[in-house]
Amino acid sequence: MSIDPRAFRNALGTFATGVTIVTTQDRSGHDVGVTANSFNSVSLEPPLVLWSLAKASASLAAFMEADYFAVHILAANQDALSNQFAKRGHNKFADLEITRGLENIPLLADCAARFQCKVAFRYEGGDHVIFVGQVQEFEHSGHAPLVYHGGRYAMAVRMEPAATTPADVTPEPDSSFSQDFLIYLLGRAHHQLFLGLRRELNRFGLSEDGWFVLSLLGVSDNRTLAELDRLLAYTGKRVRDELIANLAASDCLLLHGPFGPHSRVTLTEAGRHVVIELVAAGKAIEDHATQSFDKGEQLLLKQALRNIIRATDSGADVRLGYSSADDE
Amino acid sequence: MSIDPRAFRNALGTFATGVTIVTTQDRSGHDVGVTANSFNSVSLEPPLVLWSLAKASASLAAFMEADYFAVHILAANQDALSNQFAKRGHNKFADLEITRGLENIPLLADCAARFQCKVAFRYEGGDHVIFVGQVQEFEHSGHAPLVYHGGRYAMAVRMEPAATTPADVTPEPDSSFSQDFLIYLLGRAHHQLFLGLRRELNRFGLSEDGWFVLSLLGVSDNRTLAELDRLLAYTGKRVRDELIANLAASDCLLLHGPFGPHSRVTLTEAGRHVVIELVAAGKAIEDHATQSFDKGEQLLLKQALRNIIRATDSGADVRLGYSSADDE
Repeated sequence: MSIDPRAFRNALGTFATGVTIVTTQDRSGHDVGVTANSFNSVSLEPPLVLWSLAKASASLAAFMEADYFAVHILAANQDALSNQFAKRGHNKFADLEITRGLENIPLLADCAARFQCKVAFRYEGGDHVIFVGQVQEFEHSGHAPLVYHGGRYAMAVRMEPAATTPADVTPEPDSSFSQDFLIYLLGRAHHQLFLGLRRELNRFGLSEDGWFVLSLLGVSDNRTLAELDRLLAYTGKRVRDELIANLAASDCLLLHGPFGPHSRVTLTEAGRHVVIELVAAGKAIEDHATQSFDKGEQLLLKQALRNIIRATDSGADVRLGYSSADDE
Repeated sequence: MSIDPRAFRNALGTFATGVTIVTTQDRSGHDVGVTANSFNSVSLEPPLVLWSLAKASASLAAFMEADYFAVHILAANQDALSNQFAKRGHNKFADLEITRGLENIPLLADCAARFQCKVAFRYEGGDHVIFVGQVQEFEHSGHAPLVYHGGRYAMAVRMEPAATTPADVTPEPDSSFSQDFLIYLLGRAHHQLFLGLRRELNRFGLSEDGWFVLSLLGVSDNRTLAELDRLLAYTGKRVRDELIANLAASDCLLLHGPFGPHSRVTLTEAGRHVVIELVAAGKAIEDHATQSFDKGEQLLLKQALRNIIRATDSGADVRLGYSSADDE
């Protein structure tokens, strides 16, 4: 029966794995390391793990001779390290801080887990050799792991039972925005998160629009009214003279020159103080809202939101131009 | 060196894996199957894969005798199937639609991938036996795979380079809402997504508040004004008599009785038509905004938003009660 190698690879790629770097030292004292996702656990008693290495690998000889190796399960932020050890090359360890383990094998830092092993078996595995190691020492951190799936790096995000049983969800009538609509979920999450901040705004007598203007100046001060209006466009709102006048009257900002698109505004000391307090309040609200999230979920939520922002950004450009009663 | 089994298990758990069900048929013609995440690829030429099974497993004898087995890489929605085959029991295949593969081995449907293998080697692996199979036939679907990590089910979500290199991001001054703030990202994503819908609202002469009221009635018609006000609370807005009067004037809804918290409103035929058109427009906007998302990312984004909504929901309850000029 003939197997198409590319199709076989693709089918195997559906099995998600972590990513490891396996290291050892060859007889002449050179450090050797390879990236492998063929790692897996084998036995608890005795504690055994395995991985396989291509017979064609330049590092095969070193691993065939060595009595010890170390398996490093990579953390989510170590994709560059994974790439570094996946390439052929002689200075894979250059610029890396390593420590020394059993029999002087090189150990990498900041991984999700690390296993120092004594070779227990080397088994025939077609174009690969299967290495089975007995774990001598190990440690693990709380770092989220790097995942490899379908030829790409990924993160493992825990799945809640609800997400896996769509059959249980009561179907909503067609003529409604069901609670599964992204536009509803995004709106509700935004509104509820913002509700907490709105209480803080009230404390400072600030409107929502006023807050947007102050926070824009907090990121980068000394902007023109036209710039502020452009930056506010995504909210569907305009920077009106009245808003700027109110903020100036409450001593939050200074308008330099007459009202007009090219006039600049800067934060006052009091205005900057308000921004700092509100940013701190916003951060606390965020932390509360995402308290059940692990780091991977936080990263991926932000990544997804950035993708939505990118995909819908042209829409925000529709409403440009500064709006003023005495516009030039 | 003594190894604490629980700590060892936890360290191994940092390595994310897919989940497989391996099946065979024993000599007396009974179907046998076990859940295993110890699967991995070994060799391309010849095509070999491996997995290991505890020597204590009730299914060991069947796999020791069988010449063929099938490995099924489970899809993300097959967590229940995974649990079913992870338990001891005699009727794991009950109620399952199976087909028959080589040597009559049972094959499960709707997996991410499936490999029919002839046993190539059985290797000693401590308290497990390592089975190496030569792949005879295989197929794979586009289904997102089930992932197992840290003792829980997960999904693999591809990671974008940006998410992994936080060191490259220019730090923003402390006194600002940097673009990494969730409250900013959520707000911007919501506003931009809603901007598209707002154009449709304008087409129907609807305000944002008016749209909220109509869509609430679209989900469940015939509500009291007090109910609508409560359901709108999370937006920070109130249901005012003027809003209801406008919607009634434009023939979108009917108010039954005088203004008051217990008076009911229902959608008119025209109102329902508007809701249907706007829901379709909203769906199209969503689809455009998430065109680059795979199914896993969509699920996880919604899951994350639901978690935020749950964590911040009490905040929405602060503003309750129907607001009317002639409130009782």
